[in-house]
Amino acid sequence: MKKVAIIGASGYTGIELMRLAAMHPLFELVAVSSEQFAGKSVAEAFPFLAGRVNLSFQALAQHTELERADCAFVALPHRKAMEVVPGLLEKGIRVVDLSADFRFRATAVYEQWYKPHTAPGLLTQAVYGLSEVYREKIRSAALVANPGCYPTAALLPLIPLLISGLVSIDGIVIDAKSGVSGAGRGAVLTSLFAEVNEGIKAYKAGTHQHTPEMEQELSLAAGKPVVINFTPHLIPMNRGILATIYATLHGKTKQDDVLKCYRSFYSGKGFVRICSPGTIPSTHQVRGSNYCDIGFVVDARTNRLIIISVLDNLLKGGAGQAVQNMNIMAGFAENAGINQLPLFP
Amino acid sequence: MKKVAIIGASGYTGIELMRLAAMHPLFELVAVSSEQFAGKSVAEAFPFLAGRVNLSFQALAQHTELERADCAFVALPHRKAMEVVPGLLEKGIRVVDLSADFRFRATAVYEQWYKPHTAPGLLTQAVYGLSEVYREKIRSAALVANPGCYPTAALLPLIPLLISGLVSIDGIVIDAKSGVSGAGRGAVLTSLFAEVNEGIKAYKAGTHQHTPEMEQELSLAAGKPVVINFTPHLIPMNRGILATIYATLHGKTKQDDVLKCYRSFYSGKGFVRICSPGTIPSTHQVRGSNYCDIGFVVDARTNRLIIISVLDNLLKGGAGQAVQNMNIMAGFAENAGINQLPLFP
Amino acid sequence: MKKVAIIGASGYTGIELMRLAAMHPLFELVAVSSEQFAGKSVAEAFPFLAGRVNLSFQALAQHTELERADCAFVALPHRKAMEVVPGLLEKGIRVVDLSADFRFRATAVYEQWYKPHTAPGLLTQAVYGLSEVYREKIRSAALVANPGCYPTAALLPLIPLLISGLVSIDGIVIDAKSGVSGAGRGAVLTSLFAEVNEGIKAYKAGTHQHTPEMEQELSLAAGKPVVINFTPHLIPMNRGILATIYATLHGKTKQDDVLKCYRSFYSGKGFVRICSPGTIPSTHQVRGSNYCDIGFVVDARTNRLIIISVLDNLLKGGAGQAVQNMNIMAGFAENAGINQLPLFP
Amino acid sequence: MKKVAIIGASGYTGIELMRLAAMHPLFELVAVSSEQFAGKSVAEAFPFLAGRVNLSFQALAQHTELERADCAFVALPHRKAMEVVPGLLEKGIRVVDLSADFRFRATAVYEQWYKPHTAPGLLTQAVYGLSEVYREKIRSAALVANPGCYPTAALLPLIPLLISGLVSIDGIVIDAKSGVSGAGRGAVLTSLFAEVNEGIKAYKAGTHQHTPEMEQELSLAAGKPVVINFTPHLIPMNRGILATIYATLHGKTKQDDVLKCYRSFYSGKGFVRICSPGTIPSTHQVRGSNYCDIGFVVDARTNRLIIISVLDNLLKGGAGQAVQNMNIMAGFAENAGINQLPLFP
Repeated sequence: MKKVAIIGASGYTGIELMRLAAMHPLFELVAVSSEQFAGKSVAEAFPFLAGRVNLSFQALAQHTELERADCAFVALPHRKAMEVVPGLLEKGIRVVDLSADFRFRATAVYEQWYKPHTAPGLLTQAVYGLSEVYREKIRSAALVANPGCYPTAALLPLIPLLISGLVSIDGIVIDAKSGVSGAGRGAVLTSLFAEVNEGIKAYKAGTHQHTPEMEQELSLAAGKPVVINFTPHLIPMNRGILATIYATLHGKTKQDDVLKCYRSFYSGKGFVRICSPGTIPSTHQVRGSNYCDIGFVVDARTNRLIIISVLDNLLKGGAGQAVQNMNIMAGFAENAGINQLPLFP
Repeated sequence: MKKVAIIGASGYTGIELMRLAAMHPLFELVAVSSEQFAGKSVAEAFPFLAGRVNLSFQALAQHTELERADCAFVALPHRKAMEVVPGLLEKGIRVVDLSADFRFRATAVYEQWYKPHTAPGLLTQAVYGLSEVYREKIRSAALVANPGCYPTAALLPLIPLLISGLVSIDGIVIDAKSGVSGAGRGAVLTSLFAEVNEGIKAYKAGTHQHTPEMEQELSLAAGKPVVINFTPHLIPMNRGILATIYATLHGKTKQDDVLKCYRSFYSGKGFVRICSPGTIPSTHQVRGSNYCDIGFVVDARTNRLIIISVLDNLLKGGAGQAVQNMNIMAGFAENAGINQLPLFP
Repeated sequence: MKKVAIIGASGYTGIELMRLAAMHPLFELVAVSSEQFAGKSVAEAFPFLAGRVNLSFQALAQHTELERADCAFVALPHRKAMEVVPGLLEKGIRVVDLSADFRFRATAVYEQWYKPHTAPGLLTQAVYGLSEVYREKIRSAALVANPGCYPTAALLPLIPLLISGLVSIDGIVIDAKSGVSGAGRGAVLTSLFAEVNEGIKAYKAGTHQHTPEMEQELSLAAGKPVVINFTPHLIPMNRGILATIYATLHGKTKQDDVLKCYRSFYSGKGFVRICSPGTIPSTHQVRGSNYCDIGFVVDARTNRLIIISVLDNLLKGGAGQAVQNMNIMAGFAENAGINQLPLFP
Repeated sequence: MKKVAIIGASGYTGIELMRLAAMHPLFELVAVSSEQFAGKSVAEAFPFLAGRVNLSFQALAQHTELERADCAFVALPHRKAMEVVPGLLEKGIRVVDLSADFRFRATAVYEQWYKPHTAPGLLTQAVYGLSEVYREKIRSAALVANPGCYPTAALLPLIPLLISGLVSIDGIVIDAKSGVSGAGRGAVLTSLFAEVNEGIKAYKAGTHQHTPEMEQELSLAAGKPVVINFTPHLIPMNRGILATIYATLHGKTKQDDVLKCYRSFYSGKGFVRICSPGTIPSTHQVRGSNYCDIGFVVDARTNRLIIISVLDNLLKGGAGQAVQNMNIMAGFAENAGINQLPLFP
């Protein structure tokens, strides 16, 4: 049993963390912070949690219960997280941070795509929380940097292939489609229902800040620098990411090699499900769950491998993976509290 | 631990029963029937269940595992259920039937709104499975007739008021709005995405077959015949029912009387949550859960009580309540396996 | 040919007015005002209009082109409109105002449901712009108060019945469902995609400010005070209103009487289409058009008439009816520029 | 004025053709065929057209009015069209065919991706109806093969670049996303609302039958064989296609070269709108219109050009372009009857 705090609990990721914590058999939720809802009860702000979470939000600076926590999820915006995390660690609270602030191994890369970093010393200490890849390091980490939603969807299918050398590092295209909760809960014009519904748009083509995060991990897997094209799109749905990934196969790679590579790499890692070759997954089959499902097609005409990966951006792409990481850190069963089946339809 | 069969497992209610059974700590799913998918593995037909349900569908008549079951959920269409249920009961299998076939106490009413009945003898034996109202009878029932989705949404808020005599039995209007999964999984033109999306329609105004089911139970609660107006609508969303109910207050009834009536009636019945007066619930706060949330407003200008109730038609309005009933029958905790929080957003 | 200005052109109603004006064969759009987008070209702010509207937004107070207009649509929020309209009228510009500011015949009613009125003198001068009912008065009006979206949907089916005395004035229930554009283009939390999508909610039950507007016109039609129940709901779709109306039939009223009443009243009024009895319309059949379609069902069990009316809230419920009114004022064909067929699907 | 027939008028493309024909100032719709709705009036089957189309559907073989037509739109499924078109041409009726049956210049390619061809002689006679590219040939054609929806979205942005040699012919990736009306109006499980809504899926990755159509036209533009990767996706919206296209820039190509190329090629072709560099279009800005909007971004890190094109699959991607072609054939203004502005929101 762990006493858990959620800092920044009123954004979509924070709300999802509350939901998961309230269902977790080994978590006791002791503190939730929110500037926007400070003083309000959780049930009043989020009636779906009525009867299940009996806390009230407090502003972070004045929070009276935070010290009781054994561990904390930090779901603050980029740059805010780095102001808060050092203090938590000093108090001996283990942290899974869901911002980008501790995902980069090189301060310079962070500062190029984001802003100046105020706690660069922690970058080397933080473990990148892609659970299936870094499970051993996560176990003993004090600070886990939870991956971005798009990177999780792209890295889980690509890393095994790059490690095995089955695909070329050149010309990788990641065309990703996300539900709107990925844009956050800020009251902005571009997230209004009538602006999003019945349409699709691309954004930040070639300039999205998740690009260097993917390149960092892909390069580590490949053992040499990997540069990618990444284009995200906004889809009129609440949850879900589908990444369509184009990679050139190395000369003799066959469909079966890809399948074996995946099966071997993800053996015993229950949240990644590999589809039978030629079967293309849909986000419908993962929504509301912590699964990442991966399908692929070999296009013999162009010698390209087309990979489709799907996950729920708020679960495996966010709060779910964060709980998975905390489970690993705590020595709990990896799926404790996050084993809900997808909600279909 | 109970061995469970699901008969008619490939419609939306049947699929939801599989999902719930696979997450239930005290159910072992031993048999699933489907004519449409006979011979197919569940995981192939419904990849969201991959790795969690390892059965294959069999046609009902040839099913080899059915006899192993202690209890069965029957999720067949109306009229089909009555052909199957007697045989199950004879084998000593306790049944929760989700069709309308055993919901009526009077054969004549069933036959007026549906079709001729082939097992009318069971009507007196069946218990109407509105869990919060008939819990005691359900406990020992061999056959529970699970309520319709609309009736559940209308009866839970109205029955306590009628029992207490707080509202008039005259002039009750039930204007209900349902997500599209309520229309079933049949491949029909009117359920196509582009026919449903971006629009709303009413259907079967004044003639919907759930009308007599509501009137039966409302009349029992009031102690005299209640006749209602009921109009269902189809909303472009997957799940959820919102019922807007208009009832005339008896002379001196105050907001507080209504609140007290609800609090008293639903005390200790955790799946019904009463909103504070003037707070109107949304289906967002129950989707993916077994909750029914009830809010109300007193319109002093017209002396009308406006009640808004919300539930997930596949859970409290279908499969969830069916599991709740089976839990009661089995002596399990009433919320075993169905205590998931709503999925928000 | 008329020179047209749109004041408050960047809300959903204002945008729709720009769209209609740009397609109108007898309108020349000469001025558009917006505080939010002042200085921006229309095409930049609304790329869907690129190549078709070549104006730039200006703030109202500094607008240089306004004086060129023969007529103006005012699409400002309530209370702002009444500050602007008197000045326009003084310049000889004929006005269709889309706010609530000039819809009431009694200042007291406006002030009870809205706020204090700063130009009450205009209330008696303004003509209520329900085109099919007040066509003759509109013709010569200097100021037309365009009806609210919900009132249009409720009044078109109810007024003929009340004039003819076919239904009782007591116990009328109007349960209305609206797409989200009806909530405006303000960047507020409750209008975010993920807060609206996949759910339905009621709001302002019994207290919505369109209630007195309906009651005013219904009372005039009936010749005595009519009090109603009105509950609006928010539906996850961009456009459309469906109103489900419950009214008690006078003793001997038959289905045919209702049909005759409608056919006679709406003869020669092409934007109102009466469905054959028992046929229930859907908002799909009016979306993107200026039609209001009306269907009805006689529920003999309860002697209630159930009426379903549908319209596009931005067209017949807003900008479309405003253009219709301006056409009448200008002596143009009533359907000039607004005769587009619905967009289906 | 032309007398127009629509053959296969009850699918989504056929319905859209009826809608456009009914609004067209120079078309008189004289015949509509449908096997499914034979004998039904158009207004009964499609109430949105009530009062505007006064015909009844007839089965094709028994159609009595067909001979009156000057020209015909054939909106039948692939393979059915080739059985019907020769007979129409023999009667002197000019045809725009919306199937794939006459899009290929080589019978072998058609037969490889589709089925055996029964009228291969017409393939050389048919003109590929990409209006902006083949306008001159279309003018005098007896048979125009209207392009596929995906090919239109991909070819309009790529053809000018390949003609000008600004991008490499190697490694082109076309990742396209379509609304659900593109899947047709057949009552199939995979098109049901609850199967589509709240999710996204890819399909036919690497094997979609529009691939060779694109490759045919791209190869003609480039002057040498072009092989592409094409992956289509299904998006939960009614209308719209967004194509994200990745192409490698030739060494010294700059953003400005691309812009100039587009501006020059599409000068005087009003239905293609070029966005300012770096501005990414959304399908919202074309829905309900015949526009194709094209935006692009130069990704200097990878020397890739990322192009986003958007259109309405039922208009510029189907019925709209078909009318545009018929306008060209008839010598009408190219935008007659299809100049509606997009419906926003």
